[in-house]
This record gives sequence, structure tokens and C-alpha cells, in this order.
Amino acid sequence: MTEATQFLRRRQLLAGSAGALATAGLAGLAGPAGAQTPAPATAPAATGPRPLPPYAAWKDASAMIVHSSNTIETRRAAFGTSVITPAEQLYVRNNLPPPDASVLADRDAWQVAIEGVRNPRTVTVAELKTMGIETVAMVLQCSGNGRGYFPSKPSGTPWQVGAAGCVIWSGVPVRYVAEALGGVSPGMFYLTGTGGEKLPAGVDPLSLLVERSVNIAAMTDAILAWEMNGAPISLAHGGPLRLVVPGYNGVNNIKYVKRVAFTAAESPAKIHNTGYRMTPPGAQSKPSEPSIQELNVKSFVTGPAGDRTVRAGTVYVTGVAFSGGPAIRRIEVSSDGGKTWLEAAFVGPDLGRFAWRQFAIALRMAPGSYVLASRAIDASGATQPEQRIENAHGYSNNSWLDHAVKVAVA
Amino acid sequence: MTEATQFLRRRQLLAGSAGALATAGLAGLAGPAGAQTPAPATAPAATGPRPLPPYAAWKDASAMIVHSSNTIETRRAAFGTSVITPAEQLYVRNNLPPPDASVLADRDAWQVAIEGVRNPRTVTVAELKTMGIETVAMVLQCSGNGRGYFPSKPSGTPWQVGAAGCVIWSGVPVRYVAEALGGVSPGMFYLTGTGGEKLPAGVDPLSLLVERSVNIAAMTDAILAWEMNGAPISLAHGGPLRLVVPGYNGVNNIKYVKRVAFTAAESPAKIHNTGYRMTPPGAQSKPSEPSIQELNVKSFVTGPAGDRTVRAGTVYVTGVAFSGGPAIRRIEVSSDGGKTWLEAAFVGPDLGRFAWRQFAIALRMAPGSYVLASRAIDASGATQPEQRIENAHGYSNNSWLDHAVKVAVA
Repeated sequence: MTEATQFLRRRQLLAGSAGALATAGLAGLAGPAGAQTPAPATAPAATGPRPLPPYAAWKDASAMIVHSSNTIETRRAAFGTSVITPAEQLYVRNNLPPPDASVLADRDAWQVAIEGVRNPRTVTVAELKTMGIETVAMVLQCSGNGRGYFPSKPSGTPWQVGAAGCVIWSGVPVRYVAEALGGVSPGMFYLTGTGGEKLPAGVDPLSLLVERSVNIAAMTDAILAWEMNGAPISLAHGGPLRLVVPGYNGVNNIKYVKRVAFTAAESPAKIHNTGYRMTPPGAQSKPSEPSIQELNVKSFVTGPAGDRTVRAGTVYVTGVAFSGGPAIRRIEVSSDGGKTWLEAAFVGPDLGRFAWRQFAIALRMAPGSYVLASRAIDASGATQPEQRIENAHGYSNNSWLDHAVKVAVA
Repeated sequence: MTEATQFLRRRQLLAGSAGALATAGLAGLAGPAGAQTPAPATAPAATGPRPLPPYAAWKDASAMIVHSSNTIETRRAAFGTSVITPAEQLYVRNNLPPPDASVLADRDAWQVAIEGVRNPRTVTVAELKTMGIETVAMVLQCSGNGRGYFPSKPSGTPWQVGAAGCVIWSGVPVRYVAEALGGVSPGMFYLTGTGGEKLPAGVDPLSLLVERSVNIAAMTDAILAWEMNGAPISLAHGGPLRLVVPGYNGVNNIKYVKRVAFTAAESPAKIHNTGYRMTPPGAQSKPSEPSIQELNVKSFVTGPAGDRTVRAGTVYVTGVAFSGGPAIRRIEVSSDGGKTWLEAAFVGPDLGRFAWRQFAIALRMAPGSYVLASRAIDASGATQPEQRIENAHGYSNNSWLDHAVKVAVA
């Protein structure tokens, strides 16, 4: 082991310790109605950007925007054109501080309780590995991605485009696990996952527990994953085991998953019951409001990213487009803020319907100012809209206008 | 920037300096007939494994076998089932120490001479980015991968399975660059790439220059790449610019490429003229012998990897299969050293004909000893052979028998 990796190893070991619980902070976690209130940074940003928190110290700092210890965004300019988002550039959104890094010491020994099947019991990762294997490329996107474009400034992290990435997961299909345990019990309508984060004492567990329910139909594609992008899942991204639900918003992909249950009712945890709801502006969230579940159709330009002046001449405009499942059928790009549109071409391999597609178009650009926008249309006919849907917590922003980027050409 | 990344940054900056040239060492680079003689390690392996060299200090040490400063292999057990090999686990094989890391300071300013076109000139990466964009997933494999299984112990690094990986490159198609410069001149039969490594003084440049020629037909798929797996290419893997020739052995993918020429004749550099040739055992290499170019059909088991005892019961045997271009049609797995075979299933997305496919098969394994082997058949009908082709330098080993792995089940 080199000095450098020894150093990082020490940092990672620190990450989940009691010290990290203190430094990462629980402030903001009990914010109004499940909104993603940013926790205070570990250190005041005296000069320059906030540092990466210890458990994510291995990330590429130059590619990230650190909002807080638990909310770290990828810069628009850091998305390349290689389809995959490398782990060191993938965003982090933790609803609670991660567990102690010691949970990674023996990954195969991690236990998950399987309930709502005929023969419920606790299984280890080692046993899961004997039940099946599947690999899926998928867009992971925080429900609040694009919140930073809401003029109403909802509470929560003001993500721009970078609380999203496209990664490859490997693990066992949830449906195989259910089969191995006798099949799903009758009368179950939800797939409910529970996170293994340590809860602070003296608080109602349901007020903080990370537990989400999705429609049981999601089990067709869901996997219990132990690998991301070819490596064991890091603590920052939910290792040793994560419930991955392709096509669903990030919060439904439970990190450090300790319980997978087929349930008759939805989770009573606050994060599900009133959290992540499409609440009218100014209102309190209610369980009767639409829950944030499947991703909607969306695209954004990644290059040029507006971070520097572009040289006049031919400019390749690149970006990504995705949906909650239907393939992307068409991408259009505008350089005049949406007055006129041109069709862009797909670039690179198609990693399947849950992955994003990269696109590119060559534009001749004279010196001047431009507003670059993209809009995607999927195979179901769903079209990325011009306007966001206003809501109290700034969820599900897929407005092409909000995500447009101003570019100076000289 | 965190302390950890500052630390790594310092290490990376050191990597290409005069100090690194000294520590990385040039011994072995003028070895016989282009054979990959391992350079001495930077530090004696007093106890435990050799450390990663400074320019690759950011790699995951636990996933790698460090043969020398310029030859670093991925452990069989580190290959996951996510198709892509992450940068921090990808093998390194440098024919010369990398250039100074300062070449990464302004990536867009890197220059490459384009010759053998109607309007030859030098272009910058910034200009290349205005000529086109393509993304390709590809197996990168050193010609000497599997040399460690030759009983004749040819000189050169004794790679086992891990001088190979599957990565995604982004850049401009070489054919677009040629078109932008007036098209390929008449009478050119080769695509010749030249590396930008610094050559030591007092030596015949042709004896060390990294320059290779491939058939001009390869320009259909070749790209000048500035990105790997979604991030700018690291120094260890040829950044800021690499000539990527999908379907061809690693040595043809020129790092730090400073010249791309369409040529009437093949390169006179030793590494091409007599290096990387299929030479009969015991003979001296000659230019008339077959040059190591396209990859051959190959597969190997990655799990179980033989590094630990496996628990009796159902065992998922996983691995990878690839060829130089034709799609993989079928994979078979044997647990008895090749006496009987079963067909395995493909796992995960198909990233295109230059990528590898992951495969898996569930076997019921009672306690005992097993020899796990895999063999691939591609769409052209080419079948991975039982036996290697004996040759002086241990190239192109695709023997399924050699790559079989012994596994203890208890």
C-alpha cells in the first residue's frame, strides 16, 4: 500500500466513526416535510470552496461542488462524453451520515432481512451471491436535481444539473431473492427498502429512518447491488449493499440496505409518508400528494458548460438525455434559448433504457452570446417541457428552459 | 482541495519529472527484440508487495499486482461484473516512462502533427474538438497478457489475466481529422502513430521511440481520444491525447500521441520493425514475421478467482469474453478442466463489438477441487483454442487451458 492510499484509507476509516457523526452533523435532517435542508459544512468556507468530507475525500475535488458534508454535486463541465460517470465524479446525497466504515471490513458478511415472502429470513451478501447475477446501467438522479433553478428558492440543496450520473450496478435481481425464499406473500403491493444508517438516540426513529416504498412492479428491474462501475460499492454510494431501483429517483435506491420487505402498505417513515411529495408552493406536505417515484424525461447540455469563453467557429454541443424507462427517441438543441431547434445525433453505445444517451451536434458559432438548450422526447412520446412544475420543495425539475446554459463566444 | 487530493496531486506532479525518469528506470527498455522486459522496481520489495509508482499512486493498490514501475496488472479477483474496468483498477504497461505531468496542465494546448494528408499540419486538442466526437467501449489488452502461463518463461512481464480491461474512450474519429485536412494522400497503406515520451540522450531514437503502424483500414474505427471512462485521460493511460485503435492490441494505442501519419511504409522504429512479432521459440525477431495487431478471440473466468476457498452449493461462475471485432456469439464454461462444457449466459449491457461481454453460469458444486475454464466463440466462427501458439516472446496467449483457474470448494 502506498503512502497515498494509506492516507486515504485512514481518512475513509475515520469517515463513519463517531467523529464523523459529529462533524457531518444531523442539523437539517429534521427539516420541514422531508425537504433536503443542507447540513452545515464541516468547516466554514473561509476562502475557496468547501472541502470534501472525509468519507468522500477520494473524489476528484476539481469536478465537484461541495454544498455540505452530505450533499456534493458534479460540475456541469465535468460530465464528459463517455456515457459513464466515474465514481470519483459522481454526486453524493446522504439523508443521514453514512454508517461506520467498518461495515466494509467484511462485505460478504453484511446482513439484509427479507420480509413479505413465504419464508422470511435474514441473508448475507455471500448468500445473495449464490442467488443470481445481473448488471444494469442506470441514471441515478436526486429528486431535487435542478432545485437551484426555482426562483422561489425552496429550502434544500440548490442543485443545478449535477445531482445526477450514469453508473453501472451489479448484484442479484430482487425477484430471484424473493423466489429463493418461497415467493412474495399474497396481498403485497409495495417493495419497501430500509437503510442501515445509525439513528441518533432520543429521536422518533420514523422521523429519520431512511425507508422508501415503490410499487411492487419495480421488482422486475430492481437489484440488490454490491458493485458499482466495476468496483465494490464505496461507503459514499451505499456499500456494502444497495437496493437499486432502475428508473426511480435516487432516494428510492436505499444505501446500506438492511431490510427489503414486500409490504401491503407504504412505509410510515417520514421520508416516505410526507417526504418527497409534490406539494403546492407554500403548503405543508401530505401523504395524499404524489410521491416522487419514477424519473421524468430530461436532458441537459454538458458542453460548452458556460464556465469559459468559447472560440468562434465550429462548436460541438454535447449533453445527456434520459427518462424513467422508455428509450430516448430524439434530442433537439437550440442555441437561441428555444426559438429554433435542430436535431442532435446520439454518440456512443446505448447502455439500455435506464441509462442516459449522450448526444452531440456541430454548430457554427460566430462571436456573440448564446443560450444553449436541449430537449428530449422519449419512446412513449413524453417530451421534456419548457416549464418546471412549481412545488414547495423544488422536486423533479425537467424544464429545458431552466437547464439552458449561457455561453459567450469570441 | 482536500489534504488527500493535494497529497495525490503532488505525487502526480512528481510522476513525470526528472526524478521520475530516474526512479522509473530505463533498464530493460532496450531488451531483446521488443520483448517486454520488466524494469526494476522503484524500491526493493523488502517485505510485502511492491508499491505503486508515483504516476499511478492514485490506483487501488489492493486490486493491482505491481511487476515494475511500468508494468502493473489487475488481479483476477478484482474484475467485477459491471463490464467497465474503472481507471483505478486498469492495468498499466508503459514502453517508456511517461512524459512530465506538466503536459496535463493545459490539455487543449497539446499538439499533434497530422501527416500523409493533402494539407498536413499540426493541430491542437482544442482544434480536434471542433472536428467531431465519437465514443467507443473497447478492450485494451497488452500483447503479452497471459505470458506468465508459458512454461518456456519468455523474457518480459509474466502477466496472467490482468493486462486487460474494458474502458470507454471519447475523442474525434481519425477519419474526420483526415477529411478536415484534405483527405489521405494517395498511396498510403498504414496509419502510423508516434508517442510523445521523452527519449534519453545518446541513444538511437529508433531503438526506443514508441511508434507503431496498423493497416490503414483501422482508421474506420480509430479515434484520437482525450477522455477515458468519463474523465480526462490520466498520465498513466496516455493523456492528454491517445491514439485509440479499437480491436488492436494495446501497444498500437499510442499514448501522448504527438504524430499521426498516413504512411506508404511501416514504421522503422524497433518496437514495430522487429518488436511485437510472432517469433519462433529461441529465434531472433525479424520484420518478416507476423506483427502483433488485431486481438484474437479470448475469455477467462474472473470469479471465483482461486484466491480463496469457495463455499459448497450454488456458485456463480463469472468472466469476460472478447475478440478483435466480431461479436461474441457463445461462451462455454467447464468445471472439470475441459472434459465437459456448459453454455453460460451473457450478463449486462452489450457495449458494442470492441467491448467485452460479461458472462455467468450457476453451478452446483460439492466440496472438492475444480478447474474452471471458459472458451469463447465469436460471430466469425473463431473459437478460443485449447493451446497457446508457442512463440519467443510470449505474445497473444488465448489458450483456454492456460487461463483455467483452480478452485477449492469446501
